[in-house]
Amino acid sequence: MSSPPPPEPDPARPLESSPAELRELIDRAAERVVEHVATLADQPASYRGGAEEAAAAVTEPLPQSGAPYAEVLDLVFDRALPTSFNNAGPGFLAFIPGGGLVESAVADLIGDAINRYPTVFVAAPGLYQLEANVVRWFCDLVGYPESAGGFLSSGGSQANFSAVVAARHDRLPPDFLRGTLYASDQVHHSITKAASLAGFPVENVRKVASDDGFRLDPDALREAIAADRRAGLQPFLLVASAGTTNTGAIDPLPELAEIARREELWLHVDAAYGGFFLLTERGRRRLAGIDVADSVTLDPHKGLFLPYGTGCLLARDVATLSRSHGLRAEYMPPPPDDPRRVDFCDVSPELSRGFRGLRVWLPFKLRGARAFTDQLDEKLDLALWAAEELARVEGIEVLAEPELSLVVFRRRVEGGLEERNRANRALLDAVNARQNVFITGTLTPAGEFVLRICVLNFRTHLDRVERALSDIRECLDELAGQRPSA
Amino acid sequence: MSSPPPPEPDPARPLESSPAELRELIDRAAERVVEHVATLADQPASYRGGAEEAAAAVTEPLPQSGAPYAEVLDLVFDRALPTSFNNAGPGFLAFIPGGGLVESAVADLIGDAINRYPTVFVAAPGLYQLEANVVRWFCDLVGYPESAGGFLSSGGSQANFSAVVAARHDRLPPDFLRGTLYASDQVHHSITKAASLAGFPVENVRKVASDDGFRLDPDALREAIAADRRAGLQPFLLVASAGTTNTGAIDPLPELAEIARREELWLHVDAAYGGFFLLTERGRRRLAGIDVADSVTLDPHKGLFLPYGTGCLLARDVATLSRSHGLRAEYMPPPPDDPRRVDFCDVSPELSRGFRGLRVWLPFKLRGARAFTDQLDEKLDLALWAAEELARVEGIEVLAEPELSLVVFRRRVEGGLEERNRANRALLDAVNARQNVFITGTLTPAGEFVLRICVLNFRTHLDRVERALSDIRECLDELAGQRPSA
Repeated sequence: MSSPPPPEPDPARPLESSPAELRELIDRAAERVVEHVATLADQPASYRGGAEEAAAAVTEPLPQSGAPYAEVLDLVFDRALPTSFNNAGPGFLAFIPGGGLVESAVADLIGDAINRYPTVFVAAPGLYQLEANVVRWFCDLVGYPESAGGFLSSGGSQANFSAVVAARHDRLPPDFLRGTLYASDQVHHSITKAASLAGFPVENVRKVASDDGFRLDPDALREAIAADRRAGLQPFLLVASAGTTNTGAIDPLPELAEIARREELWLHVDAAYGGFFLLTERGRRRLAGIDVADSVTLDPHKGLFLPYGTGCLLARDVATLSRSHGLRAEYMPPPPDDPRRVDFCDVSPELSRGFRGLRVWLPFKLRGARAFTDQLDEKLDLALWAAEELARVEGIEVLAEPELSLVVFRRRVEGGLEERNRANRALLDAVNARQNVFITGTLTPAGEFVLRICVLNFRTHLDRVERALSDIRECLDELAGQRPSA
Repeated sequence: MSSPPPPEPDPARPLESSPAELRELIDRAAERVVEHVATLADQPASYRGGAEEAAAAVTEPLPQSGAPYAEVLDLVFDRALPTSFNNAGPGFLAFIPGGGLVESAVADLIGDAINRYPTVFVAAPGLYQLEANVVRWFCDLVGYPESAGGFLSSGGSQANFSAVVAARHDRLPPDFLRGTLYASDQVHHSITKAASLAGFPVENVRKVASDDGFRLDPDALREAIAADRRAGLQPFLLVASAGTTNTGAIDPLPELAEIARREELWLHVDAAYGGFFLLTERGRRRLAGIDVADSVTLDPHKGLFLPYGTGCLLARDVATLSRSHGLRAEYMPPPPDDPRRVDFCDVSPELSRGFRGLRVWLPFKLRGARAFTDQLDEKLDLALWAAEELARVEGIEVLAEPELSLVVFRRRVEGGLEERNRANRALLDAVNARQNVFITGTLTPAGEFVLRICVLNFRTHLDRVERALSDIRECLDELAGQRPSA
């Protein structure tokens, strides 16, 4: 009566590994991972040449057959990996560092292998709660009330995007194209990108002048808003940076909050870099006022030293996120009965996504929050100390006292802008060529190329910052020797 | 002359683990993971009650101090995890399954621990290339030309969102609010959500009627477009589903492509569920025509059995993605010199994000593409066989021959819609109460509640599908006994 059951797949090409095979694979990977992490301090901070070769070594069409564990791991660790900026190492003082806590890596091993779906409560209530704990801890850290909530994103860009969407939905009519948003000329470009993705013309993003500390100038802001209102535009969103990527500046939050309140703008604080300094006393002082923001972006893969892949958006009233992001379908499980519980898919752009909660939760559980506080305090100390030391170096000018863990400086050179910038790029290249540390530069609003040291990797301690300073001093001397006119 | 260097963090609260500690943590996690995976077949497919208890057991404020490895792992594996839908297990036939290849979990362990930044070529050229390989393999699979490209997303929602943004940018003026998009009434709700996030009023999403095979009806589509044009609206995007979530239906791609061409609409194919059947001969036949789409969504965490967290958007001309998503800043490294290379941040919404390429690349390298083909062929066979078997069960009606690996059926019951739906929900509940398999239902456009079996977990083989069928038969008998009127 029945048709014959279908054949099994070819047993010679299994996709599922036996427990022994899985254990062997994990063991081999663990060996390489632990060895790699243990030797990070001795690995170069960046690379010199060989990019094309590294890429060519691993370029290939889709492999039809499998390869042995050892061969594949060698390809990753010995061929693809060595030629790279060493973001995980203690010498990484570039961009905004993070680090890569191996505890989070283990969390992903677990979260991926168990492959549950904690995005909605009903599908995995215990695991959902681990992620909900994390979101609540972050709300408490910001000083948010019970009404607050949010979600873990893939990074700051996604978080900032959802903030723009929430603000657009909350403050503008459906025909929103006359809506204008405000941020300093130092704001992270993900805000402009978010506005563009959300449908705004990029010219609706007003880059308001910053002061000589690179902080948004409230007077310039008030003028910009007034001018736009006169022109019939609809100011709706103010983005304050709490730790700019360029210089680590913190916009004057209380004053901006007051302007936002009076002008009825949504206030979003991009604290992707600076937010987790709220775990320290100095950070809380410097970020005072953040708790009145309508939304806040945090980046655990920055200030909590997590591997890349975890940002966070919090909203003071989580209902603003559900109104702008909530949309269900008949094939989905029902939302939680308890209104205090929010399924993450209802407040974020995603439906299926990885278990981000575990990679934040596990390090906190294993190490405790105080270990993070200690680290962040040390980073504040190190940046302050580096700024003081740099200020003493002849030929170096520190542009601004670090508000957090980022020092901006430049080589003082006679000459025009182009010549000055060339001299500073030369210093940057010389320092990076030594591969003890990796630093980057940026441009000030005036077009001045300046150098940055951002201390945020949990593996960076005094010895490496000292090394950065001695490399800078020595490179300055060398460059001065080469070009006595400088 | 120098100020004293800052103090070190309290050595009693280290954040960084020693190599021996890391190895111990990974070993303990590996033990739990391998044991969990080895016993998946014996674990219940879902849970009955206990959700509140599971959540309460792990609810706590931010822990200030750390806890021992064993205690924390017990909390995850013994308290939080058991109460959940078992998406990883062979009995998961609900929604769209995936599975959770442990090879990908190991890839994340590695990718997180090394924490490089392969999103841009210059930062990690070898690792970037691993991800670029994956994107190229997928382009080849779709049949795309050299001009194609794309990125790995967090899932299908993010991929669909970027498709809408790319289409909006490519086909509409900056004032785009009169733009209308078209999809069948079976389309995944992430399309409507994407349109809403991208700034469109949700009513601009036209849900065109589907035929009795749940496929978009081309005549209804032509009429809808014509009516909108007459009303002064601007049709710009047609979304075809290649494997709907509700019933697995594949919209008539060649006919829709022809309409899109003639009407100058962007054609996006949401192949999140069905796309990887392109690895099989039957899949290629059924998805013929997909290569002319302007963009395609694929979900490796569905058809490649990956853990949640990896979708993909491909565009026939990758420049359409850079034009709509590319935006750089002065603090970023420069884009690649080679125009054939594209930094992923320039074609996607994200800047910092995890190393998604490795979790796709590693399983392909270790197992070979043919192992995936075998699995997908088996899933097609199993669904077909299940449909045939179900069609033979008295009191069961199969609604549509499976085009892929999804069977939709219902209990045939006399009575009105409400009564029929109640009877089908009762069958669903009875089957799921046995916890051998977990299946879900959905609503047809007519409001009919129907049941679905989706075979896509790589751990699901004949024995479990047989079990699903016998559970259905037995539950039908039991329900008939309880309510002889049914």
